[in-house]
Amino acid sequence: MTVAARRLKALGETTGFVPTMGYLHEGHLSLVRLSKKGASSTILSIFVNPTQFGPKEDLEKYPRDTEGDLEKCRSEDVDIVFMPEPGDMYPAGYGTYITVDGITSNLCGRSRPGHFKGVATVVAKLFNIAQPDKAYFGQKDFQQTVIIRRMVRDLNMAVEIVVGPTLREPDGLAMSSRNAYLKPDERRAAPALYQALESARLRCEEGGVSTDLLTAQILEKLRKEPLIEPEYVEVVSPENLEPLSHTGGGAVIAAAVRIGVTRLIDNIIIS
Amino acid sequence: MTVAARRLKALGETTGFVPTMGYLHEGHLSLVRLSKKGASSTILSIFVNPTQFGPKEDLEKYPRDTEGDLEKCRSEDVDIVFMPEPGDMYPAGYGTYITVDGITSNLCGRSRPGHFKGVATVVAKLFNIAQPDKAYFGQKDFQQTVIIRRMVRDLNMAVEIVVGPTLREPDGLAMSSRNAYLKPDERRAAPALYQALESARLRCEEGGVSTDLLTAQILEKLRKEPLIEPEYVEVVSPENLEPLSHTGGGAVIAAAVRIGVTRLIDNIIIS
Repeated sequence: MTVAARRLKALGETTGFVPTMGYLHEGHLSLVRLSKKGASSTILSIFVNPTQFGPKEDLEKYPRDTEGDLEKCRSEDVDIVFMPEPGDMYPAGYGTYITVDGITSNLCGRSRPGHFKGVATVVAKLFNIAQPDKAYFGQKDFQQTVIIRRMVRDLNMAVEIVVGPTLREPDGLAMSSRNAYLKPDERRAAPALYQALESARLRCEEGGVSTDLLTAQILEKLRKEPLIEPEYVEVVSPENLEPLSHTGGGAVIAAAVRIGVTRLIDNIIIS
Repeated sequence: MTVAARRLKALGETTGFVPTMGYLHEGHLSLVRLSKKGASSTILSIFVNPTQFGPKEDLEKYPRDTEGDLEKCRSEDVDIVFMPEPGDMYPAGYGTYITVDGITSNLCGRSRPGHFKGVATVVAKLFNIAQPDKAYFGQKDFQQTVIIRRMVRDLNMAVEIVVGPTLREPDGLAMSSRNAYLKPDERRAAPALYQALESARLRCEEGGVSTDLLTAQILEKLRKEPLIEPEYVEVVSPENLEPLSHTGGGAVIAAAVRIGVTRLIDNIIIS
């Protein structure tokens, strides 16, 4: 894989990289299209990374569709698909991990201890394997994008991180492979997460709002949907994820909820 | 720096890299000479890395001689010398660290908690900056070489690690920038460390020896030198640094001592 990546580089190609856990949807494909525009060759990886799942999380049942994924990659003209096995990525005696302090402890980090350590580690490994010039991530995983940018800066990685907008279903639900878990009534309830965030955004655009008020309003909206159990609603700085007391100078409103066994996240940027 | 490194690569050059903390001695220069043979261009870094020093260690008084170092680099025809400032390497908000589990907890790791986290992190950063094909380290820091090899394997870094032999003063003392700390009587006492290891090696070459017996004999020899205070003597596997009960199948005998305020380490490989 690295040999192929190096050959592309030697040919003067710029490489775009889209790391995924597979079960590809339009959100992933929108990142592929950004890469096809921004780089002369595109590598996509499919790897359900065990080190970013907690012991009680959904590693075993994470949805997979290798044939469908490869067909989508062919349609989008992806140049290289990299699909390692867990034993390739974490051989016997594996023991090296990357931690990013501070920005991994709130938001999703609070309920998923170790998650971002697994994410940072696998992304660094994939970057070293694929040696991309640019790498593409979706805004839906906002905290992940901030952590990866920080890691790239801190470790002097020669990769440009590009964040593509969250793609949404017609009713506003952010696209996610985990949406496949939702039962029909849960699926009908799920857009309430986006709607609560979007109405908060509209309120902020009329002028800065106090965070306490805003989160209370979002939680109130979410609680009207009995199938939704909020995990967090936080208003943070888009640069360093620090909690903000007011949305005046730009903010991210990020939230996680549980609907049945499914955990969904979403966020909206206030400019 | 990365731009210069990339230009060399684009020209088809292979890059050898010698990371140092400066105050260069013949041990460092022997690594430069290995690099000059093994690669078409050689980068040497000088950076006294604060994150690998503990709060009570010798960061402030670590010996420095920039002019002398640069003169030696000129004489050895080093192509690029990289001398970053601490604020370049660890800018405001820095928070990313690399840990290597297991092999960092014994030997020097026991008395220097956090040391190898600092080493792994700065070496990864320097590798990303210099983008070398090969990197050269001295055997004197044996545990460091095993940890860096493990990190390179685990994180899929495209760097070949080359370990050069320990260079010694005529009386056997391993060359080290820290030897400059030794007062005259301490300097006279210091070769006892090497002598104890070397006589242990000779005993092992006559046939495998029990580790308990061997370490007892080494400690007995060291204790004959009143200025020497042993910190550890351990017999471990050269691959994974696990303690061995017998030296029959290959081993490393590693030791650390204090002489006055100076901490010295040395090791010998039993084949």
